[in-house]
Amino acid sequence: MSTYEARLAALRAQLKTDRLDGFVVPICDEHMSEYVGEYAQRLGWLTGFGGSAGSAVVLSEEAAIFTDGRYTLQVREQVDGKHWEYVGVPETSISDWLRAHAPAGARIGYDPWVHTKGWVESATKALKAKGAELVAVSRNPIDAVWGDQPAKSNARLVVHEDRYAGQSSAEKRAQIAEWLAANKLDSTVVAALDSVAWLLNVRGADVSRTPVALSFVLAHADGTADLFVAPEKVSDEVRAHLGNAVRLRTPEEFVPELKAMAGKRIAVDPDRSVAAIFGALGDAGATIVEARDPTILPKAQKNPIEQAGHRAAQTRDGAALSNFLHWMHETAHQGGLTELSAAAKLQDFRAATGQLKDLSFDTISATGPNGAHCHYKVDESSNRAIEPNSIYLVDSGGQYLDGTTDVTRTIWVGPGEPTAEMKDRFTRVLKGHIALALAVFPEGTRGAQLDTVARASLWQAGLDYAHGTGHGVGSFLAVHEGPQRIAKFTGSQPGTDEPLLPGMILSNEPGYYKAGEYGIRIENLVLVEERTIAGAEGRYFGFENLTWAPIDKTLVDTSLLNRDELRWWDEYHARVLDIVGPQLEGDALAWVTEACAPLGRG
Amino acid sequence: MSTYEARLAALRAQLKTDRLDGFVVPICDEHMSEYVGEYAQRLGWLTGFGGSAGSAVVLSEEAAIFTDGRYTLQVREQVDGKHWEYVGVPETSISDWLRAHAPAGARIGYDPWVHTKGWVESATKALKAKGAELVAVSRNPIDAVWGDQPAKSNARLVVHEDRYAGQSSAEKRAQIAEWLAANKLDSTVVAALDSVAWLLNVRGADVSRTPVALSFVLAHADGTADLFVAPEKVSDEVRAHLGNAVRLRTPEEFVPELKAMAGKRIAVDPDRSVAAIFGALGDAGATIVEARDPTILPKAQKNPIEQAGHRAAQTRDGAALSNFLHWMHETAHQGGLTELSAAAKLQDFRAATGQLKDLSFDTISATGPNGAHCHYKVDESSNRAIEPNSIYLVDSGGQYLDGTTDVTRTIWVGPGEPTAEMKDRFTRVLKGHIALALAVFPEGTRGAQLDTVARASLWQAGLDYAHGTGHGVGSFLAVHEGPQRIAKFTGSQPGTDEPLLPGMILSNEPGYYKAGEYGIRIENLVLVEERTIAGAEGRYFGFENLTWAPIDKTLVDTSLLNRDELRWWDEYHARVLDIVGPQLEGDALAWVTEACAPLGRG
Repeated sequence: MSTYEARLAALRAQLKTDRLDGFVVPICDEHMSEYVGEYAQRLGWLTGFGGSAGSAVVLSEEAAIFTDGRYTLQVREQVDGKHWEYVGVPETSISDWLRAHAPAGARIGYDPWVHTKGWVESATKALKAKGAELVAVSRNPIDAVWGDQPAKSNARLVVHEDRYAGQSSAEKRAQIAEWLAANKLDSTVVAALDSVAWLLNVRGADVSRTPVALSFVLAHADGTADLFVAPEKVSDEVRAHLGNAVRLRTPEEFVPELKAMAGKRIAVDPDRSVAAIFGALGDAGATIVEARDPTILPKAQKNPIEQAGHRAAQTRDGAALSNFLHWMHETAHQGGLTELSAAAKLQDFRAATGQLKDLSFDTISATGPNGAHCHYKVDESSNRAIEPNSIYLVDSGGQYLDGTTDVTRTIWVGPGEPTAEMKDRFTRVLKGHIALALAVFPEGTRGAQLDTVARASLWQAGLDYAHGTGHGVGSFLAVHEGPQRIAKFTGSQPGTDEPLLPGMILSNEPGYYKAGEYGIRIENLVLVEERTIAGAEGRYFGFENLTWAPIDKTLVDTSLLNRDELRWWDEYHARVLDIVGPQLEGDALAWVTEACAPLGRG
Repeated sequence: MSTYEARLAALRAQLKTDRLDGFVVPICDEHMSEYVGEYAQRLGWLTGFGGSAGSAVVLSEEAAIFTDGRYTLQVREQVDGKHWEYVGVPETSISDWLRAHAPAGARIGYDPWVHTKGWVESATKALKAKGAELVAVSRNPIDAVWGDQPAKSNARLVVHEDRYAGQSSAEKRAQIAEWLAANKLDSTVVAALDSVAWLLNVRGADVSRTPVALSFVLAHADGTADLFVAPEKVSDEVRAHLGNAVRLRTPEEFVPELKAMAGKRIAVDPDRSVAAIFGALGDAGATIVEARDPTILPKAQKNPIEQAGHRAAQTRDGAALSNFLHWMHETAHQGGLTELSAAAKLQDFRAATGQLKDLSFDTISATGPNGAHCHYKVDESSNRAIEPNSIYLVDSGGQYLDGTTDVTRTIWVGPGEPTAEMKDRFTRVLKGHIALALAVFPEGTRGAQLDTVARASLWQAGLDYAHGTGHGVGSFLAVHEGPQRIAKFTGSQPGTDEPLLPGMILSNEPGYYKAGEYGIRIENLVLVEERTIAGAEGRYFGFENLTWAPIDKTLVDTSLLNRDELRWWDEYHARVLDIVGPQLEGDALAWVTEACAPLGRG
């Protein structure tokens, strides 16, 4: 019996003990984090699936794994079809499948700490139609049978100083308190880890690549807060920083505190708080007011200190990336590099700044056909040699105290020349990138309204890319931060209808992926800024560019660029040289100087 | 006592007789038509309001009139503030106002033939909160006191021949029958007048500018239909055309027929059928399935014969408009023209084709500041002289048997030169028009995704226009036809999320309006067509241009146009000359030849 077969059998035995006829296993943690810790990787442990989004349902005789189009191939490679039925979402939802497969009268379990209230309501309804029942478990049955389940991280919190945050936690809490008072609310639950970190000006190291600490906050209308966090994670320095207005509580006190909220009016964000939180407040007899986490907008609209921090971080990060691009230019065409060795070298250049705290996500270092998977992550099993005369794509970023970076460059690895098709595709992606970079738009414009300008040039050639165009980015926080997003409004990604506001950071990252051959993406971060335009009727916004590193002109077909696009290229590269040049030396400086020379028309 | 004061008093007396404490008066007819007949202009009769959208609520002591931002000024000029409170929608809905103003226990009447079911539900709920009641009346109390209420038009139906329709009514009914069978439905209500006309291949003359006949249809799963229409409107020829499968019934038989639908499954479109229809079917015990009128998509996707008809109509109409533009060029700069006289002249040129059945809407003939009102309609009171050295905007169209046209041109009336600002604004509108004309987009793209490309150039200058960019157009039918629309998806106009499909016709009409000074709009109709692109990944669509008439180069700043835009201009005008030239003579031909010469760079 294979490992995964044994695990499935063990879970089924546990379900029997727990008097359940089935159980639902998502990839989710208590904070609805985008990236969940090892301890919460229950789906991977149970099935072998390595993707970042998916769910499973285990019944006594059947089991199904639910994945979206990105993972159609991967799930079939990693998960045993003898024991698991493959189901595609969103075509068939878990509720749909349960409605068809759950036996009448069945008791199907779920862990309320890893599902939204909305999911619970819809699954309850689906099961009711079969005379079956959805049952909240008090202990996750997978944890009961997962012998070597990793412990939750115990990393210590650190203070995020005001000189980086730009606003004290007391000021932020006062702002939230004002919102609570205006809405006649007593308190709000802050469950998202980056919201906690932002509100209290603390950072942690419990989650890979995102400097947050596992914790919950209750923020109150008097400006005080309760922070629920393991006591051993809190140093004296952090304790002093938090002060008397932030009460330190243990994680075990969180639910009892919710259950003591009888008669209170509590704001809870249904997209960022799990069902268990609603359940505890409901049991208490509290009045739950569904509202967006009030830290979301102030966190997204960077204050002047945060903006300055981002500029400084990007200056530093751009020089590291430029050093890497120079090194690639000198080395790669000789052969011998791999995706992993290149990614390691890039990390070295970032580390050499002396200020790198972590990468902001696992580097996407992809050559040839690997680049065509837009969600590719390199590991030992997928690692490819970077061949001469190929396209290489690197999407990477760093976590610095003053900012979080995220940048993609796609380069031609010589010594030969790219094909006309490659240059055509690269230039169309570039035109989309420039069109978005140059966009000016009225107050009230949503990300969905700008998405098309980044695609129009590819569409002219009958081509497109199957991902969004831009996401928000945190300040020494999550590299994917809401609420804003630039994407097709038909893509069911949240945030495309969020008005863009000054101070928001977005990525600008159109791409093109030729299956089996190569991938292209050009990504800079941009900052929404108000524009002063003579004669303007109303408020208009545009983008300040944040990311500075040469774009590979070897891949550009200049005959496809119009005057405005050529001007953008030349001005951008002149500024790259201004900003990055003084940090470089010798050959690297010479190379960047040449890479940033005006493009002119070929 | 003024006329309107007397009418309000008469209505209040009638309400007392009818034991009602209030009454709601929309602008709507039994078919939810965009333009309603004189007999249904109850709001205008009661209040003096002349706009095309608005509502009123009359209580025993208070009365309020509800209009949107377009009519803020107009309603205050036309409706007496002594008797009427002005209320802005959507800020305050009728339901909001009723909740605040209706007395507890009040009986508020409404005519179920002029409201949607959705409105009735929301108003009922709002009144319930006050202990008040919304009561359907069996006779509209305004009709009881409107002494000289115009009769409904009694115009005769005419056959719309298959050589124009491209598909027989029997084929269309078979297609609907197939849809009904596939959805296990017995019948569907066709209440929209243009849907009836399309389905039966008949036209009428009951509504100004739109060739439809007041009637209802019940279409059945066996391919037969019941047509409810005044018998005196049906000639022998129409009767023969309809054949045995279409049963002729009187309007009085419609409700009894609905009430005889017990046990049947009936599709009803909640956006196109009034509350009374739902009420009658509900009383009958029929099963109502809410679904979009099944004629909507086939009506919108023009068949090859209809497409050819549109091309022919546009060729003819473009020549008429070109003759007018030449005449304006010769005449207007001398002074002496007015908006009304110019509109009359344009109608003469269209009539001279010998094929004009009607205008497709009241001509917008607007000079100087009148042009800055984007919904301006000229009448005796607003009529302005067309001054030398001004901007003149004309938005107009014709109804022809083979197609419906809609075109806007904005011209400079010499003999002087337009200002640099005027040229800048005109050229930005032109750039938006060209960008949309040249758009290529993947299958599944919605109108909202294309809207931005038409605005981007104005946005760069901090400018915008407060209307949609494109609407659908019928085939010898309504000049505003759903379901598709190109507009901001935030503008709450229906249709912006409708996928664009080959055969759909749309207007392309960006504009710019400088309050108190001038208005600019450039409008052509375009046809969605599938594109064959070498190497395309998936299906891609683009636009075939349908409208042919010179755009005024006097207003163009060529330095703002890029290569692609200049190429579009020159190719477009070369085709205008090819298409329109052979229909012109003498001076007009010479002028158009000059107007269509390549623009080159100045």
